[in-house]
Amino acid sequence: MGYSALLETAGRVNDFLNAGSILSWDARTMMPKGGAASRAKQLSTLAVAARDLLCSDEMRRNLDAADTETASLPEDSPERAIIAQLREAIDYHDRIPTELLRRKTELGSTAHEIWADARADADFARFAPALEEMVAINREMAHAIGFADHPYDALMYRFEPGTTTAQLRDLFATLRAGMQPLVRAIAEKEQPRSDFLYRDFPADAQMRFALQMAEAIGYDTSRGRLDLTVHPFEISFTRNDVRITTRVSRNYMPMSLFGALHEAGHALYEQNIDPDYTRTPLATDLISLYAVGGVSFGAHESQSRLWENHVGRSVAFWGNHFGALRDAFPDQLADVSAEEFHAAVNRARPSLIRVEADELTYDFHVMLRVDLESRMIDGSLDVADLPEAWNAGMKSMLGVDVPDDAQGVLQDVHWSSGQIGTFCNYTIGNIMAAQLFDTATTQDAGIATALEAADYTPLRDWLSDKVCRHGRRHARDELLRRATGRTLDPQPYLRYLTDKYSALYGLARA
Amino acid sequence: MGYSALLETAGRVNDFLNAGSILSWDARTMMPKGGAASRAKQLSTLAVAARDLLCSDEMRRNLDAADTETASLPEDSPERAIIAQLREAIDYHDRIPTELLRRKTELGSTAHEIWADARADADFARFAPALEEMVAINREMAHAIGFADHPYDALMYRFEPGTTTAQLRDLFATLRAGMQPLVRAIAEKEQPRSDFLYRDFPADAQMRFALQMAEAIGYDTSRGRLDLTVHPFEISFTRNDVRITTRVSRNYMPMSLFGALHEAGHALYEQNIDPDYTRTPLATDLISLYAVGGVSFGAHESQSRLWENHVGRSVAFWGNHFGALRDAFPDQLADVSAEEFHAAVNRARPSLIRVEADELTYDFHVMLRVDLESRMIDGSLDVADLPEAWNAGMKSMLGVDVPDDAQGVLQDVHWSSGQIGTFCNYTIGNIMAAQLFDTATTQDAGIATALEAADYTPLRDWLSDKVCRHGRRHARDELLRRATGRTLDPQPYLRYLTDKYSALYGLARA
Repeated sequence: MGYSALLETAGRVNDFLNAGSILSWDARTMMPKGGAASRAKQLSTLAVAARDLLCSDEMRRNLDAADTETASLPEDSPERAIIAQLREAIDYHDRIPTELLRRKTELGSTAHEIWADARADADFARFAPALEEMVAINREMAHAIGFADHPYDALMYRFEPGTTTAQLRDLFATLRAGMQPLVRAIAEKEQPRSDFLYRDFPADAQMRFALQMAEAIGYDTSRGRLDLTVHPFEISFTRNDVRITTRVSRNYMPMSLFGALHEAGHALYEQNIDPDYTRTPLATDLISLYAVGGVSFGAHESQSRLWENHVGRSVAFWGNHFGALRDAFPDQLADVSAEEFHAAVNRARPSLIRVEADELTYDFHVMLRVDLESRMIDGSLDVADLPEAWNAGMKSMLGVDVPDDAQGVLQDVHWSSGQIGTFCNYTIGNIMAAQLFDTATTQDAGIATALEAADYTPLRDWLSDKVCRHGRRHARDELLRRATGRTLDPQPYLRYLTDKYSALYGLARA
Repeated sequence: MGYSALLETAGRVNDFLNAGSILSWDARTMMPKGGAASRAKQLSTLAVAARDLLCSDEMRRNLDAADTETASLPEDSPERAIIAQLREAIDYHDRIPTELLRRKTELGSTAHEIWADARADADFARFAPALEEMVAINREMAHAIGFADHPYDALMYRFEPGTTTAQLRDLFATLRAGMQPLVRAIAEKEQPRSDFLYRDFPADAQMRFALQMAEAIGYDTSRGRLDLTVHPFEISFTRNDVRITTRVSRNYMPMSLFGALHEAGHALYEQNIDPDYTRTPLATDLISLYAVGGVSFGAHESQSRLWENHVGRSVAFWGNHFGALRDAFPDQLADVSAEEFHAAVNRARPSLIRVEADELTYDFHVMLRVDLESRMIDGSLDVADLPEAWNAGMKSMLGVDVPDDAQGVLQDVHWSSGQIGTFCNYTIGNIMAAQLFDTATTQDAGIATALEAADYTPLRDWLSDKVCRHGRRHARDELLRRATGRTLDPQPYLRYLTDKYSALYGLARA
């Protein structure tokens, strides 16, 4: 009775969070512009209701009763895992003063407008005071949450629990050492032709082909749908309704296609969570208060990057699907081969803007941001010195000169809305994707053979079994250890990048 | 402080109800089929949260504080109206035992399936036991809510507060006396041609034209949108996001067109509520727990019927817009004149199915249902005798023979889901529509002149001023009295029908 009452209360928390997600999806895909003002209030009411119910006396009473009832179960049983996660989440939210949360939310909306104006004029000085305040609030938040070593660790906790600044510094040093020689070597090589990517591709046909490819890798549209948006995202309202979006540039076709594959990868995570976990904390992120079943933001990113890059940008994929692509765009691709298309969508070259960066240089943008964020939070970097540090980092890591702050330190929306500590997810996702793909194809030769034949079922089944179905049952590193025999390991990722770009650009192997 | 805290708590009730509406809109327009199972739980959690917050200690404390604070304000001030409506709603919900609500909801979902099966086989006997139980639960509910005269009055309260069964019996007798001679006279006349309505009209072009007409009468798409659905509806998420839907039959074009005009009429009510009332009880139906600003379901229907029928089926409307319609469908309407189109979409003849009935015979379907419902609730009609009573009513009122229960007593979904007491809204809406339109065009000759010139602004402004802007501030009859000088009066409606159908069918005037 105690445990089932606990599940029902937790289920209502999940309902509130999912309702918020539906309102958020609607706001980003369907809502007329007039709806914005009241939508913000509605979203806030749902978020507060979820947090209040999570931390309510009712929940605490149910937890006590459930404790007694489940005392004889093994510690790693789902029941005990659910109870532990609820207690951990309540403890986390109890530490953050309501007043601090309120200040952060309020500053978030004013700072966002200031940032947008500052970016339009490439004028960092105008944004600096708001950013200073946002850094101060985040620092205060870090101290409220608590940390063993570095205040930035506390901020990463809600996105990537257990990850530390010290760990990331080592990891990033290894990555840079392996990746920089590739970047330099490619800089001396001729780039493949890519003129055809910029031809005129009608939006409707792009959306149709993008959905066709998402369905090819296993995205289930009886439990999802694809829509058009400005900033692509995946969002789930339980495993049985997991929606994806993509954006379309009429004159740059890969945007819709790889956007859809990326979001479909995220969606496969959610669609394949154990059905028994629906509405439970094993499919609800009670720390970040987001109705998502993935165990960390990085683990989620591993699935999107795996399907987008390891599958969707592979030689085999385009060997199999280029015919269908050319059927969809016969005029635009009349003079293009599958090999040329594959080479074009895998071009690598240093650039200024993170969201436009290629697979090889993307992590440098992440590493720069993590370094600068953590130093602002620990006080070793003043906000006033940020542009100089940014530009120096871009020069030393990627060799590019930043012409102005709009194309530099002002390019991302995150800081203005108060999101500090989330950039590491992208690189952790890349590392995990390579590690999982490497293990899957090594453990079972049939997986690679099937991929050659456009059969994505064996890989999807392996990932579902090792990753997706577990939801939030095991912590990220435990999940990785069970799946690959070890925790986060950058070596498969470095091997993958080296092999891939050596073949693409004819590099001499070290 | 007390009053503003009260408004904020009431605002959160409104947020929960609006969130439920957004989830409901999504379920009926966008949701993949897999989403149904978890959506029901999410909707239920939001509805319970709204009701719990409405009846919470927090709300009651705020009410007490607000009472003191607003004691010196006039009784008809918005503040005192809001306080009174909150107390009335809490009192209403306090009377209904949670256990009874739960039984009704549970029976609703099982009875719905039984009804669908029974209707498919035209087998009333299979549905009868579930209907008996539903009638018993509704009777119990009526006694819990309380009533002065007839238990059916208590059931109508949430839809049409203040309306009594005795009142409706008088009203309906007057209507029947005025309408039956028209129905009989038309039966002897030749019907106008309508063959062209059944030609092939592509769905996309129908949707475009339907939206064009909705915008013509003033539906603001910067605060709304039109989508395709199976059962058309209007739904608002505050006045700044009011959405409409319509359905399309490729071989019967009026369905999408008049569906859209009808829903746009509903939408104009919500879009024109006083902005100051947003998120307050003056734009929230706290009795039926629905985030709607209209003062009763019948008042809402008055706006949809006014725009659909008094405007959208008028000679002037098609004199002005038939050209655009023929531009949209040049082949389908090549041999049709504006007059022929107007006559065809105003045909009247007795028929079996309520939702397919024309403007003149629709109310008979309503009167039959209200009569049968009220007699089942007061126990003077046994469920076992319902089909016979239905068929006899159809014969005596409309002269039609009901061939089987699927086309008779089993045709409507309402009873299976437990909705008893709502049918009167349609006829009250028709009466109010005529009364308001008559007053508007009599008071201000400029309104009629403008309609002749396809200028809908003067009529819309009059309705906004007299009806829409007030939201739920005044009770329905008070609203009518302020707008037209009297309460519900069937005479303008009877005059309108007599004039219209006499002209259409060349009837001799009494």
